Amino acid sequence: MQGTSFGIVVFDQVEELDFVGPWEMLRVWNQQAHGPENCLIVAQAKAPVTCAKGLSINPHISFAACPQLDYLLIPGGIGTRKEVDNPVMLDFIATQAKHCKAVLSVCTGAFVLQAAGLLAGKKATTHWGSLDRLRALGDVEVAEQRFVRDGQIWTSAGVSAGIDLTLAFIAETAGDAVAGHVQFYAEFFPDGKRYGGCEHRPEAPAYLKQS
Amino acid sequence: MQGTSFGIVVFDQVEELDFVGPWEMLRVWNQQAHGPENCLIVAQAKAPVTCAKGLSINPHISFAACPQLDYLLIPGGIGTRKEVDNPVMLDFIATQAKHCKAVLSVCTGAFVLQAAGLLAGKKATTHWGSLDRLRALGDVEVAEQRFVRDGQIWTSAGVSAGIDLTLAFIAETAGDAVAGHVQFYAEFFPDGKRYGGCEHRPEAPAYLKQS
Repeated sequence: MQGTSFGIVVFDQVEELDFVGPWEMLRVWNQQAHGPENCLIVAQAKAPVTCAKGLSINPHISFAACPQLDYLLIPGGIGTRKEVDNPVMLDFIATQAKHCKAVLSVCTGAFVLQAAGLLAGKKATTHWGSLDRLRALGDVEVAEQRFVRDGQIWTSAGVSAGIDLTLAFIAETAGDAVAGHVQFYAEFFPDGKRYGGCEHRPEAPAYLKQS
Repeated sequence: MQGTSFGIVVFDQVEELDFVGPWEMLRVWNQQAHGPENCLIVAQAKAPVTCAKGLSINPHISFAACPQLDYLLIPGGIGTRKEVDNPVMLDFIATQAKHCKAVLSVCTGAFVLQAAGLLAGKKATTHWGSLDRLRALGDVEVAEQRFVRDGQIWTSAGVSAGIDLTLAFIAETAGDAVAGHVQFYAEFFPDGKRYGGCEHRPEAPAYLKQS
Protein backbone atom coordinates (compact mmCIF):
# COMPACT_ATOMS: atom_id res chain seq x y z
CA MET A 1 0.00 0.00 0.00
CA GLN A 2 1.52 3.30 -1.11
CA GLY A 3 1.30 6.37 1.11
CA THR A 4 0.11 6.97 4.64
CA SER A 5 -2.72 4.87 6.01
CA PHE A 6 -5.36 5.49 8.66
CA GLY A 7 -7.57 2.64 9.79
CA ILE A 8 -10.87 2.91 11.63
CA VAL A 9 -11.93 -0.32 13.33
CA VAL A 10 -15.63 -1.22 13.29
CA PHE A 11 -17.56 -4.07 14.89
CA ASP A 12 -21.11 -5.17 15.58
CA GLN A 13 -22.94 -2.39 17.53
CA VAL A 14 -20.31 0.29 16.92
CA GLU A 15 -21.80 3.76 17.49
CA GLU A 16 -22.40 5.48 14.17
CA LEU A 17 -21.26 9.05 14.83
CA ASP A 18 -18.24 7.82 16.83
CA PHE A 19 -16.58 6.70 13.63
CA VAL A 20 -18.30 8.71 10.89
CA GLY A 21 -17.32 12.02 12.55
CA PRO A 22 -13.60 11.18 12.40
CA TRP A 23 -14.05 9.46 9.02
CA GLU A 24 -15.46 12.65 7.50
CA MET A 25 -12.64 14.80 8.87
CA LEU A 26 -9.94 12.36 7.74
CA ARG A 27 -11.35 12.01 4.24
CA VAL A 28 -11.72 15.76 3.83
CA TRP A 29 -8.12 16.06 5.00
CA ASN A 30 -7.13 13.54 2.35
CA GLN A 31 -9.16 15.03 -0.50
CA GLN A 32 -8.65 18.70 0.26
CA ALA A 33 -5.30 18.96 2.01
CA HIS A 34 -3.01 15.97 1.38
CA GLY A 35 -4.07 13.88 4.40
CA PRO A 36 -3.52 10.09 4.61
CA GLU A 37 -4.01 8.53 1.16
CA ASN A 38 -5.51 5.32 2.52
CA CYS A 39 -8.41 5.66 4.94
CA LEU A 40 -9.86 2.25 5.62
CA ILE A 41 -12.85 0.92 7.53
CA VAL A 42 -11.42 -2.27 9.02
CA ALA A 43 -13.40 -5.14 10.58
CA GLN A 44 -12.73 -8.66 11.74
CA ALA A 45 -14.49 -9.93 8.61
CA LYS A 46 -15.23 -8.14 5.35
CA ALA A 47 -18.98 -8.50 5.79
CA PRO A 48 -21.80 -6.05 6.60
CA VAL A 49 -21.67 -4.57 10.10
CA THR A 50 -24.81 -3.44 11.91
CA CYS A 51 -24.10 -0.36 14.00
CA ALA A 52 -25.51 0.41 17.45
CA LYS A 53 -28.29 2.61 16.08
CA GLY A 54 -29.18 0.36 13.16
CA LEU A 55 -27.13 1.67 10.23
CA SER A 56 -25.60 -1.10 8.12
CA ILE A 57 -22.15 -0.55 6.62
CA ASN A 58 -19.66 -2.50 4.51
CA PRO A 59 -16.05 -2.49 5.78
CA HIS A 60 -13.28 -2.03 3.24
CA ILE A 61 -10.95 -4.71 4.54
CA SER A 62 -10.66 -7.55 7.06
CA PHE A 63 -8.13 -7.73 9.88
CA ALA A 64 -6.40 -10.60 8.09
CA ALA A 65 -5.96 -8.62 4.86
CA CYS A 66 -5.11 -5.32 6.53
CA PRO A 67 -1.54 -4.10 6.02
CA GLN A 68 0.40 -2.28 8.74
CA LEU A 69 -1.35 1.04 9.39
CA ASP A 70 0.23 4.34 10.34
CA TYR A 71 -2.73 5.44 12.45
CA LEU A 72 -5.54 3.53 14.09
CA LEU A 73 -8.84 4.72 15.61
CA ILE A 74 -11.23 2.66 17.75
CA PRO A 75 -14.75 4.06 18.08
CA GLY A 76 -17.13 3.21 20.90
CA GLY A 77 -20.66 1.93 21.19
CA ILE A 78 -22.46 -0.73 23.16
CA GLY A 79 -20.59 -3.36 21.11
CA THR A 80 -17.37 -2.54 22.97
CA ARG A 81 -18.75 -4.50 25.94
CA LYS A 82 -18.23 -7.64 23.87
CA GLU A 83 -15.11 -6.54 22.01
CA VAL A 84 -13.08 -6.14 25.22
CA ASP A 85 -13.32 -9.94 25.44
CA ASN A 86 -12.65 -10.63 21.74
CA PRO A 87 -9.09 -11.97 21.45
CA VAL A 88 -9.01 -11.48 17.66
CA MET A 89 -9.90 -7.79 18.08
CA LEU A 90 -7.43 -7.23 20.90
CA ASP A 91 -4.63 -9.01 19.07
CA PHE A 92 -5.23 -6.97 15.91
CA ILE A 93 -5.11 -3.70 17.85
CA ALA A 94 -2.11 -4.62 20.00
CA THR A 95 -0.14 -5.89 17.01
CA GLN A 96 -0.95 -2.89 14.81
CA ALA A 97 -0.30 -0.43 17.64
CA LYS A 98 3.32 -1.54 17.98
CA HIS A 99 4.18 0.21 14.72
CA CYS A 100 1.49 2.92 14.61
CA LYS A 101 2.52 6.54 14.95
CA ALA A 102 -0.65 7.20 16.96
CA VAL A 103 -3.67 5.26 18.25
CA LEU A 104 -6.94 7.06 18.94
CA SER A 105 -10.24 6.14 20.55
CA VAL A 106 -13.65 7.77 20.73
CA CYS A 107 -16.16 7.26 23.54
CA THR A 108 -16.11 3.71 24.97
CA GLY A 109 -13.53 2.70 22.38
CA ALA A 110 -11.15 3.52 25.28
CA PHE A 111 -12.18 0.24 26.93
CA VAL A 112 -11.01 -1.71 23.90
CA LEU A 113 -7.68 0.13 23.95
CA GLN A 114 -7.37 -0.67 27.66
CA ALA A 115 -8.17 -4.33 27.08
CA ALA A 116 -5.50 -4.39 24.38
CA GLY A 117 -3.00 -3.14 26.95
CA LEU A 118 -2.57 0.34 25.51
CA LEU A 119 -3.85 2.52 28.36
CA ALA A 120 -1.78 1.23 31.31
CA GLY A 121 -0.44 4.26 33.16
CA LYS A 122 -1.91 6.59 30.57
CA LYS A 123 -4.16 9.61 30.87
CA ALA A 124 -7.39 8.96 28.96
CA THR A 125 -11.10 9.69 28.76
CA THR A 126 -14.40 8.19 27.57
CA HIS A 127 -18.14 8.91 27.42
CA TRP A 128 -19.38 10.65 30.61
CA GLY A 129 -21.59 7.65 31.38
CA SER A 130 -18.55 5.36 31.53
CA LEU A 131 -15.99 7.52 33.36
CA ASP A 132 -16.46 5.65 36.65
CA ARG A 133 -16.20 2.32 34.89
CA LEU A 134 -12.92 3.41 33.25
CA ARG A 135 -11.63 4.64 36.62
CA ALA A 136 -12.53 1.30 38.21
CA LEU A 137 -10.18 -0.54 35.87
CA GLY A 138 -7.41 0.87 38.04
CA ASP A 139 -4.62 1.40 35.55
CA VAL A 140 -5.91 4.46 33.69
CA GLU A 141 -5.57 8.06 34.85
CA VAL A 142 -9.02 9.34 33.87
CA ALA A 143 -9.11 12.97 32.73
CA GLU A 144 -12.58 14.45 32.27
CA GLN A 145 -11.66 16.46 29.22
CA ARG A 146 -13.25 16.71 25.77
CA PHE A 147 -10.23 14.79 24.51
CA VAL A 148 -6.86 13.84 25.94
CA ARG A 149 -3.49 13.20 24.40
CA ASP A 150 -0.88 11.17 26.24
CA GLY A 151 2.06 10.56 23.94
CA GLN A 152 0.90 8.47 21.00
CA ILE A 153 -2.48 7.73 22.58
CA TRP A 154 -5.40 10.07 21.94
CA THR A 155 -8.81 9.44 23.54
CA SER A 156 -12.02 11.45 23.43
CA ALA A 157 -15.28 11.83 25.32
CA GLY A 158 -18.52 10.47 23.87
CA VAL A 159 -19.90 10.18 20.35
CA SER A 160 -19.56 13.66 18.78
CA ALA A 161 -16.30 14.36 20.66
CA GLY A 162 -14.50 12.30 18.04
CA ILE A 163 -14.82 15.25 15.67
CA ASP A 164 -13.00 17.61 18.05
CA LEU A 165 -10.42 14.89 18.66
CA THR A 166 -9.76 14.38 14.96
CA LEU A 167 -9.42 18.08 14.20
CA ALA A 168 -6.93 18.44 17.06
CA PHE A 169 -5.05 15.42 15.76
CA ILE A 170 -4.92 16.93 12.26
CA ALA A 171 -3.72 20.25 13.68
CA GLU A 172 -0.96 18.46 15.59
CA THR A 173 0.05 16.33 12.60
CA ALA A 174 -0.33 18.75 9.70
CA GLY A 175 -0.63 22.17 11.29
CA ASP A 176 -3.28 24.68 12.22
CA ALA A 177 -3.96 25.86 8.65
CA VAL A 178 -4.72 22.35 7.42
CA ALA A 179 -7.05 21.64 10.36
CA GLY A 180 -8.74 24.97 9.59
CA HIS A 181 -9.22 23.98 5.97
CA VAL A 182 -10.85 20.68 7.02
CA GLN A 183 -13.02 22.42 9.61
CA PHE A 184 -14.16 25.00 7.05
CA TYR A 185 -14.98 22.43 4.37
CA ALA A 186 -17.00 20.36 6.87
CA GLU A 187 -18.45 23.60 8.22
CA PHE A 188 -17.79 22.44 11.76
CA PHE A 189 -18.77 25.67 13.49
CA PRO A 190 -21.55 24.45 15.81
CA ASP A 191 -23.84 27.08 17.23
CA GLY A 192 -22.96 26.01 20.77
CA LYS A 193 -26.56 26.02 21.89
CA ARG A 194 -27.28 23.92 24.95
CA TYR A 195 -30.67 22.37 25.43
CA GLY A 196 -32.28 21.20 28.63
CA GLY A 197 -29.54 22.22 31.04
CA CYS A 198 -28.01 18.73 31.12
CA GLU A 199 -24.55 20.22 31.59
CA HIS A 200 -25.61 20.86 35.19
CA ARG A 201 -26.43 17.22 35.91
CA PRO A 202 -24.15 15.70 38.55
CA GLU A 203 -22.84 13.09 36.10
CA ALA A 204 -21.75 15.73 33.56
CA PRO A 205 -18.02 15.49 32.86
CA ALA A 206 -15.71 18.10 34.38
CA TYR A 207 -14.91 19.81 31.06
CA LEU A 208 -18.60 20.50 30.57
CA LYS A 209 -19.27 21.78 34.07
CA GLN A 210 -16.31 24.12 33.83
CA SER A 211 -17.17 25.50 30.42
CA MET B 1 -45.96 0.67 9.74
CA GLN B 2 -46.89 1.46 13.34
CA GLY B 3 -45.78 4.72 14.94
CA THR B 4 -44.04 7.81 13.64
CA SER B 5 -41.56 7.48 10.80
CA PHE B 6 -38.53 9.52 9.76
CA GLY B 7 -36.83 8.80 6.48
CA ILE B 8 -33.35 9.84 5.42
CA VAL B 9 -32.76 9.67 1.67
CA VAL B 10 -29.36 8.47 0.46
CA PHE B 11 -27.87 8.21 -3.03
CA ASP B 12 -24.57 7.61 -4.74
CA GLN B 13 -21.99 10.17 -3.49
CA VAL B 14 -24.05 11.35 -0.53
CA GLU B 15 -21.82 13.09 2.05
CA GLU B 16 -21.30 10.83 5.05
CA LEU B 17 -21.59 13.24 7.98
CA ASP B 18 -24.52 15.05 6.33
CA PHE B 19 -26.77 12.10 7.08
CA VAL B 20 -25.02 10.25 9.92
CA GLY B 21 -25.08 13.36 12.15
CA PRO B 22 -28.90 13.63 11.93
CA TRP B 23 -29.24 9.83 12.00
CA GLU B 24 -27.38 9.62 15.31
CA MET B 25 -29.52 12.35 16.89
CA LEU B 26 -32.77 10.83 15.63
CA ARG B 27 -31.91 7.34 16.81
CA VAL B 28 -30.83 8.58 20.23
CA TRP B 29 -34.12 10.48 20.39
CA ASN B 30 -35.93 7.24 19.57
CA GLN B 31 -34.01 5.00 21.96
CA GLN B 32 -33.66 7.40 24.86
CA ALA B 33 -36.63 9.72 24.67
CA HIS B 34 -39.55 8.30 22.65
CA GLY B 35 -38.60 9.80 19.27
CA PRO B 36 -39.87 8.43 15.94
CA GLU B 37 -40.14 4.63 16.14
CA ASN B 38 -39.18 4.08 12.52
CA CYS B 39 -36.00 5.73 11.31
CA LEU B 40 -35.20 4.53 7.83
CA ILE B 41 -32.34 4.98 5.39
CA VAL B 42 -34.20 5.15 2.07
CA ALA B 43 -32.68 4.82 -1.40
CA GLN B 44 -33.91 4.42 -4.95
CA ALA B 45 -32.83 0.76 -4.80
CA LYS B 46 -32.16 -1.43 -1.77
CA ALA B 47 -28.53 -1.97 -2.76
CA PRO B 48 -25.19 -0.76 -1.35
CA VAL B 49 -24.58 2.96 -1.70
CA THR B 50 -21.08 4.41 -1.97
CA CYS B 51 -20.88 7.73 -0.18
CA ALA B 52 -18.92 10.79 -1.31
CA LYS B 53 -15.94 10.02 0.91
CA GLY B 54 -15.90 6.28 0.21
CA LEU B 55 -17.98 4.74 3.00
CA SER B 56 -20.31 1.98 1.77
CA ILE B 57 -23.73 1.62 3.40
CA ASN B 58 -26.81 -0.57 3.00
CA PRO B 59 -30.14 1.29 2.85
CA HIS B 60 -33.05 -0.17 4.79
CA ILE B 61 -35.70 0.27 2.13
CA SER B 62 -36.26 1.26 -1.49
CA PHE B 63 -38.40 4.16 -2.68
CA ALA B 64 -40.90 1.67 -4.12
CA ALA B 65 -41.31 -0.17 -0.81
CA CYS B 66 -41.26 2.92 1.39
CA PRO B 67 -44.54 3.77 3.13
CA GLN B 68 -45.70 7.34 3.65
CA LEU B 69 -43.24 9.01 6.03
CA ASP B 70 -43.99 11.64 8.66
CA TYR B 71 -40.63 13.36 8.25
CA LEU B 72 -38.09 13.36 5.46
CA LEU B 73 -34.45 14.53 5.36
CA ILE B 74 -32.28 15.00 2.27
CA PRO B 75 -28.55 15.18 2.90
CA GLY B 76 -26.05 16.78 0.53
CA GLY B 77 -22.86 15.73 -1.16
CA ILE B 78 -21.42 15.90 -4.63
CA GLY B 79 -24.02 13.33 -5.71
CA THR B 80 -26.74 15.97 -5.48
CA ARG B 81 -25.44 17.42 -8.79
CA LYS B 82 -26.84 14.30 -10.47
CA GLU B 83 -29.88 13.83 -8.24
CA VAL B 84 -31.37 17.21 -9.18
CA ASP B 85 -31.90 15.66 -12.61
CA ASN B 86 -33.14 12.28 -11.40
CA PRO B 87 -36.92 12.16 -11.98
CA VAL B 88 -37.35 9.09 -9.75
CA MET B 89 -35.68 10.90 -6.83
CA LEU B 90 -37.61 14.13 -7.38
CA ASP B 91 -40.91 12.31 -7.71
CA PHE B 92 -40.31 10.34 -4.51
CA ILE B 93 -39.52 13.51 -2.56
CA ALA B 94 -42.35 15.59 -4.01
CA THR B 95 -44.90 12.82 -3.46
CA GLN B 96 -43.77 12.07 0.10
CA ALA B 97 -43.53 15.76 0.99
CA LYS B 98 -47.24 16.31 0.30
CA HIS B 99 -48.12 14.44 3.47
CA CYS B 100 -44.97 14.98 5.56
CA LYS B 101 -45.18 17.11 8.69
CA ALA B 102 -41.72 18.49 7.91
CA VAL B 103 -39.04 18.14 5.24
CA LEU B 104 -35.40 18.87 6.07
CA SER B 105 -32.19 19.18 4.10
CA VAL B 106 -28.52 19.37 5.02
CA CYS B 107 -25.84 21.08 2.93
CA THR B 108 -26.43 20.76 -0.83
CA GLY B 109 -29.47 18.59 -0.16
CA ALA B 110 -31.25 21.96 -0.53
CA PHE B 111 -30.73 21.74 -4.30
CA VAL B 112 -32.64 18.46 -4.43
CA LEU B 113 -35.49 20.02 -2.44
CA GLN B 114 -35.48 22.95 -4.85
CA ALA B 115 -35.54 20.66 -7.87
CA ALA B 116 -38.48 18.82 -6.31
CA GLY B 117 -40.33 22.14 -6.12
CA LEU B 118 -40.21 22.50 -2.36
CA LEU B 119 -38.19 25.70 -1.96
CA ALA B 120 -40.08 28.11 -4.22
CA GLY B 121 -40.53 31.37 -2.29
CA LYS B 122 -38.94 29.83 0.80
CA LYS B 123 -36.09 30.98 3.01
CA ALA B 124 -33.33 28.36 2.94
CA THR B 125 -29.60 27.74 3.20
CA THR B 126 -26.85 25.37 2.06
CA HIS B 127 -23.09 24.79 2.29
CA TRP B 128 -21.13 28.08 2.16
CA GLY B 129 -19.51 26.97 -1.11
CA SER B 130 -22.91 26.71 -2.80
CA LEU B 131 -24.73 29.78 -1.47
CA ASP B 132 -24.27 31.73 -4.70
CA ARG B 133 -25.42 28.76 -6.75
CA LEU B 134 -28.58 28.51 -4.61
CA ARG B 135 -29.17 32.24 -4.98
CA ALA B 136 -28.77 31.96 -8.75
CA LEU B 137 -31.73 29.59 -8.98
CA GLY B 138 -33.85 32.68 -8.43
CA ASP B 139 -36.78 31.31 -6.45
CA VAL B 140 -35.10 30.80 -3.04
CA GLU B 141 -34.55 33.47 -0.42
CA VAL B 142 -31.07 32.47 0.74
CA ALA B 143 -30.36 33.08 4.43
CA GLU B 144 -26.75 32.63 5.50
CA GLN B 145 -27.62 31.05 8.83
CA ARG B 146 -26.43 27.81 10.47
CA PHE B 147 -29.91 26.49 9.77
CA VAL B 148 -33.21 28.01 8.68
CA ARG B 149 -36.81 27.07 9.28
CA ASP B 150 -39.53 28.29 6.96
CA GLY B 151 -42.79 26.63 7.88
CA GLN B 152 -42.47 22.90 7.30
CA ILE B 153 -39.13 23.25 5.48
CA TRP B 154 -35.89 23.15 7.47
CA THR B 155 -32.52 23.56 5.73
CA SER B 156 -29.01 23.70 7.14
CA ALA B 157 -25.53 24.83 6.19
CA GLY B 158 -22.85 22.31 5.28
CA VAL B 159 -22.00 18.81 6.53
CA SER B 160 -21.82 19.07 10.34
CA ALA B 161 -24.59 21.70 10.47
CA GLY B 162 -27.08 18.86 10.13
CA ILE B 163 -26.47 18.04 13.79
CA ASP B 164 -27.44 21.54 14.94
CA LEU B 165 -30.45 21.39 12.60
CA THR B 166 -31.64 18.07 13.99
CA LEU B 167 -31.31 19.12 17.62
CA ALA B 168 -33.29 22.29 16.89
CA PHE B 169 -35.91 20.20 15.10
CA ILE B 170 -36.14 17.84 18.09
CA ALA B 171 -36.47 20.80 20.47
CA GLU B 172 -39.28 22.23 18.34
CA THR B 173 -41.06 18.90 18.03
CA ALA B 174 -40.55 17.36 21.47
CA GLY B 175 -39.36 20.21 23.66
CA ASP B 176 -36.16 21.59 25.09
CA ALA B 177 -35.70 18.86 27.71
CA VAL B 178 -35.84 16.06 25.13
CA ALA B 179 -33.35 17.84 22.85
CA GLY B 180 -31.13 18.29 25.91
CA HIS B 181 -31.30 14.61 26.70
CA VAL B 182 -30.27 13.72 23.13
CA GLN B 183 -27.49 16.31 23.14
CA PHE B 184 -26.18 14.99 26.46
CA TYR B 185 -26.24 11.34 25.38
CA ALA B 186 -24.39 12.18 22.14
CA GLU B 187 -22.14 14.52 24.15
CA PHE B 188 -22.58 17.23 21.54
CA PHE B 189 -20.74 19.96 23.41
CA PRO B 190 -18.01 20.87 20.90
CA ASP B 191 -15.07 22.81 22.25
CA GLY B 192 -15.73 25.60 19.75
CA LYS B 193 -12.08 25.83 18.78
CA ARG B 194 -11.43 27.43 15.42
CA TYR B 195 -8.41 26.45 13.41
CA GLY B 196 -6.69 28.40 10.68
CA GLY B 197 -8.83 31.51 10.78
CA CYS B 198 -11.02 30.35 7.87
CA GLU B 199 -14.02 32.13 9.39
CA HIS B 200 -12.44 35.34 8.12
CA ARG B 201 -12.28 34.18 4.50
CA PRO B 202 -14.49 36.28 2.20
CA GLU B 203 -16.58 33.25 1.26
CA ALA B 204 -17.42 32.44 4.89
CA PRO B 205 -21.19 32.49 5.48
CA ALA B 206 -22.70 35.44 7.31
CA TYR B 207 -23.53 33.47 10.47
CA LEU B 208 -19.86 32.59 10.86
CA LYS B 209 -18.51 36.08 10.20
CA GLN B 210 -20.94 37.52 12.73
CA SER B 211 -20.21 35.00 15.48
